[in-house]
Amino acid sequence: MRWLVGVIRVITLEDPVALGRHGEIIERTVSQVKTVSRCIEDQPRGIYDEESERVAIPKILRLGHELVERYRVHGIVVSCAGDPGVDELRSELGIPVVGAGRAAAALALSVGERVGVLGITDEPPKPFERVLRDRLVAYEKPRCIGTTLDIERCVDEVVESARRLTSSGADVIALACTGFSTAGLAPVIEERTGVKVVDPVVAEAVVMYWELVRHYSQRVVLR
Amino acid sequence: MRWLVGVIRVITLEDPVALGRHGEIIERTVSQVKTVSRCIEDQPRGIYDEESERVAIPKILRLGHELVERYRVHGIVVSCAGDPGVDELRSELGIPVVGAGRAAAALALSVGERVGVLGITDEPPKPFERVLRDRLVAYEKPRCIGTTLDIERCVDEVVESARRLTSSGADVIALACTGFSTAGLAPVIEERTGVKVVDPVVAEAVVMYWELVRHYSQRVVLR
Repeated sequence: MRWLVGVIRVITLEDPVALGRHGEIIERTVSQVKTVSRCIEDQPRGIYDEESERVAIPKILRLGHELVERYRVHGIVVSCAGDPGVDELRSELGIPVVGAGRAAAALALSVGERVGVLGITDEPPKPFERVLRDRLVAYEKPRCIGTTLDIERCVDEVVESARRLTSSGADVIALACTGFSTAGLAPVIEERTGVKVVDPVVAEAVVMYWELVRHYSQRVVLR
Repeated sequence: MRWLVGVIRVITLEDPVALGRHGEIIERTVSQVKTVSRCIEDQPRGIYDEESERVAIPKILRLGHELVERYRVHGIVVSCAGDPGVDELRSELGIPVVGAGRAAAALALSVGERVGVLGITDEPPKPFERVLRDRLVAYEKPRCIGTTLDIERCVDEVVESARRLTSSGADVIALACTGFSTAGLAPVIEERTGVKVVDPVVAEAVVMYWELVRHYSQRVVLR
């Protein structure tokens, strides 16, 4: 372990195993990182529309400050594809803060030209539009999904939506809800569509790692 | 070590220490990777314009195939910001192939909105235009630089160019020549301009690592 990263889950989870699942994916992806996970209160269905995002933001900011004060984390991941509170935390805390949305969108552009986005909201989450612009060639929300909790129940419909994205010309698919990571669907979709699939929790892990290297190691070299 | 990555240097280097320098940065950045480095022949000044790129490409493709056949590498990095031969190698080899250009441009978009690009050619390398489009707010080539070999000799002019980029509104600077990595200039520029700086060799290391995780680990999970 070289760095401790705070993971903010934007869904209220009582089960510690469920709470730690994204942290576990992050640690498995990047062995130099250890995580500590916290979740927002009173949102058992997570973030799934503008109102649920609006009420989540002050809770996310509070958790971010608490993670720094209590655990002295080196960085914070807001494990949500909408990147709620990421810009605010970044400027308030002065340490690396990464959201799943921009991380996944940016990594998609490192391997593809035409990005298909698969999410759970009616429109693509803002970070995807912000990073991809006209490279966002198509967006799909599987009909069966209302909130992140529905993802595991309708894998076939998710794969159908992914296939529609490739039919629209996507040469890479970015998953725009971290619930797809919890359900482990990136390799399933990749296997069944034949195009590269960006897992948002893996993406936030990799971009966080890069930010930690940049922010801490490069500076240490100078001293 | 979990993966072996072939590093193609696009400059002819006789000194094994110089040849291994990018591999060393990659291994230091990502400890799960071990590297084997090769360089193209007969280009002691590297790639610095269209003609020097054109003649380099068949040599790069030859080295890519050799690295797979002789060393059974899991992935290949073309350590050049112009990404010469990357698309061809990707489709010919079927393993992860990453160039410094798209990797650096993509990671810049994960943390910034307005990207300043600092390179050694008259125009920004194509991958930066391809990924960034109108997010590429300004480009600078320090006057003192003709080829990658000149970088170490004029650090102050490089920093001056970087300052001009921030004056043009850049909130992140992407270095568009891996010679800046060889010279270790990313932290120097970051310290002296106050904005985040994307080191292209660190970027190619991180994106390659992500590609290795996606390509190998995710698939293994399925079996």
